[in-house]
Amino acid sequence: ARKHRIAVIPGDGIGKETTPEGLRVLDAAARRFGFELELTHYDWSCETYAQTGKMMPEDGLDRLKQSDSVFLGAVGWPGVPDHVSLWGLLIPIRRGFDQYVNLRPCKLLPGATTPLANRGPADIDFYVVRENTEGEYSSVGGRMFPGTDREFVSQQSILTRIGCDRVMKYAFELAMTRKRKKVTSATKSNGITFTMPYWDERFAEMAKAYPEVTTDQFHIDILCAHFVQHPDWFDVVVGSNLFGDILSDLGPAVAGSIGIAASANINPEKTFPSMFEPVHGSAPDIAGKWICNPIGQIWSGAMMLEHLGEKAAADAITDAIETMLRDGGPRTRDMGGQAGTVDVGKALAEVV
Amino acid sequence: ARKHRIAVIPGDGIGKETTPEGLRVLDAAARRFGFELELTHYDWSCETYAQTGKMMPEDGLDRLKQSDSVFLGAVGWPGVPDHVSLWGLLIPIRRGFDQYVNLRPCKLLPGATTPLANRGPADIDFYVVRENTEGEYSSVGGRMFPGTDREFVSQQSILTRIGCDRVMKYAFELAMTRKRKKVTSATKSNGITFTMPYWDERFAEMAKAYPEVTTDQFHIDILCAHFVQHPDWFDVVVGSNLFGDILSDLGPAVAGSIGIAASANINPEKTFPSMFEPVHGSAPDIAGKWICNPIGQIWSGAMMLEHLGEKAAADAITDAIETMLRDGGPRTRDMGGQAGTVDVGKALAEVV
Ligand SMILES: CC(C)[C@H](C(=O)O)[C@@H](O)C(=O)O
Ligand SMILES: CC(C)[C@H](C(=O)O)[C@@H](O)C(=O)O
Repeated sequence: ARKHRIAVIPGDGIGKETTPEGLRVLDAAARRFGFELELTHYDWSCETYAQTGKMMPEDGLDRLKQSDSVFLGAVGWPGVPDHVSLWGLLIPIRRGFDQYVNLRPCKLLPGATTPLANRGPADIDFYVVRENTEGEYSSVGGRMFPGTDREFVSQQSILTRIGCDRVMKYAFELAMTRKRKKVTSATKSNGITFTMPYWDERFAEMAKAYPEVTTDQFHIDILCAHFVQHPDWFDVVVGSNLFGDILSDLGPAVAGSIGIAASANINPEKTFPSMFEPVHGSAPDIAGKWICNPIGQIWSGAMMLEHLGEKAAADAITDAIETMLRDGGPRTRDMGGQAGTVDVGKALAEVV
Repeated sequence: ARKHRIAVIPGDGIGKETTPEGLRVLDAAARRFGFELELTHYDWSCETYAQTGKMMPEDGLDRLKQSDSVFLGAVGWPGVPDHVSLWGLLIPIRRGFDQYVNLRPCKLLPGATTPLANRGPADIDFYVVRENTEGEYSSVGGRMFPGTDREFVSQQSILTRIGCDRVMKYAFELAMTRKRKKVTSATKSNGITFTMPYWDERFAEMAKAYPEVTTDQFHIDILCAHFVQHPDWFDVVVGSNLFGDILSDLGPAVAGSIGIAASANINPEKTFPSMFEPVHGSAPDIAGKWICNPIGQIWSGAMMLEHLGEKAAADAITDAIETMLRDGGPRTRDMGGQAGTVDVGKALAEVV
């Protein structure tokens, strides 16, 4: 049977509760569709940081490299600063494995409640393709004249030709697989006048190679407004690291799915493993109660299977989620129900 | 009588239609409240650019400096690139006059239609305070290795102590005048790790000076989501140039007022004139038809009067707008009516 090697990192807080449910459903899909998942578990987390002073061991990336994909829960815990937890685990994996595409579906699922008036599932169904390695999240910057009135900090935003082209290519290729075949570019070239005009240039250049794809572009300020006013305008939206980050929270928010949204950190060439994680965080306020919603994790598992070439199994999982939500299966509290985390995982594993 | 000197720049497109209506209402308010407005008109625009090669004359800022405030319509026209039109007129005024606060009310007006479900005027009533001179809109950057695979562009984001402190102080002072006395800071210190942690530091420092003010902070991605899901959480929101730009389009969008939103570019010390302009642009698609909505311009006029110390007159204008909208006065097409631009201006001038 086909075999896929999965590195599992539950991480912190509710990550430890959602990951097992993700695995439960993945396991069901593997049995039904006839492939094998070889799991290796890593307990890297803020807890191991407290014990060892490290979020992951020195050779962490080397170990993960043995796997085909990384299945991540959530990273972060009160008391451990973000620059330690996120920059010690999440960001090094994204960058070290050149996972230059961060892909996030924004989809109004049946039964989910959107904060928007008069919008149904047909109105909100698009992808945000976020550049995931450069841009505004750069490692070039510093502080000068500390402690004085002249004090200032500076940080560079960097866009490379390679970085822009490859993520844009991914967005156009994705659009080609979809019915509407449309790519929207997020820019701000009217205000940020060195980097963003270059983004526009590369976008225009890439568009030439895809004559079948319709394109448009909006400045990020009005684009955010359009997400709220006209979510039906979008099919594939491509943005820089920061703009993609913003849009891929705002998109799920308008779709009423921010608690259940999935994401993929993809290295399309498969030179390195890709990583799949729910959009939500470790949710310290409800961690330990087993009441959190595992759908984001399970949906991320579906994205992982698609990346691993198990398209039928991936579709079966997303179908199962939609069916369960539409037909009133078990729901956790955030969706107005009383079910526990495990109830939802089991229900999905059964119908997958 | 008290006299205020106003420089009027209608600019482009519908700016030429909204500005006269703004002046009509200002004039009515001046008569009723017993002050005088001395107007100087400037035709600086993309049209003058086409004729003279300049958006404004060399001594443009010196001329404007003779006035107490600048009343601007809209800048920009197809065929003239943004770096010419905006960076030749709008941005030089903001920066040349150190208008370091960009203030934008986000308010659900009676009769306006919000895209959000189940939200009324009591739910959306806050201000975005945007830093307006530095941050991500910097003039430090460039391109290297052009035309090669190694090509990259870079742009610095710069936050100074002076720049952060003064805009934050403005936000806290504004909060002190309001009932809820709350300031929310927009950050992204978990991803943008040189500049944004500094923003957080300065915010924490400033908060100490205002023990009566409640504070919180969110990363910009989830903050955008909260604008949609919980607009009622906010009172005063302070952000960097880019984050403020995004939030001050998203805020009016959730309030259903993006076409009628007002903004003030303020130099609080009054060392230089401040500038007041609607949030909307020059709207080439409807320009020349006199069907555009002048409320954004008129509302900006009210903000100008408040800045000039004419608080009673300013309140009279905003009250007139709310009353007219609630009582079903004339409405332009964007608000579902048939009225022309002038009808709305006249109706407001009458009741002010
Ligand atoms: C036109 C553009 C440069 C400007 C900005 O980003 O400042 C506009 O979006 C605004 O908010 O006034
Ligand atoms: C935690 C943070 C650094 C991260 C990001 O901004 O990339 C998160 O918001 C995300 O979108 O995965």
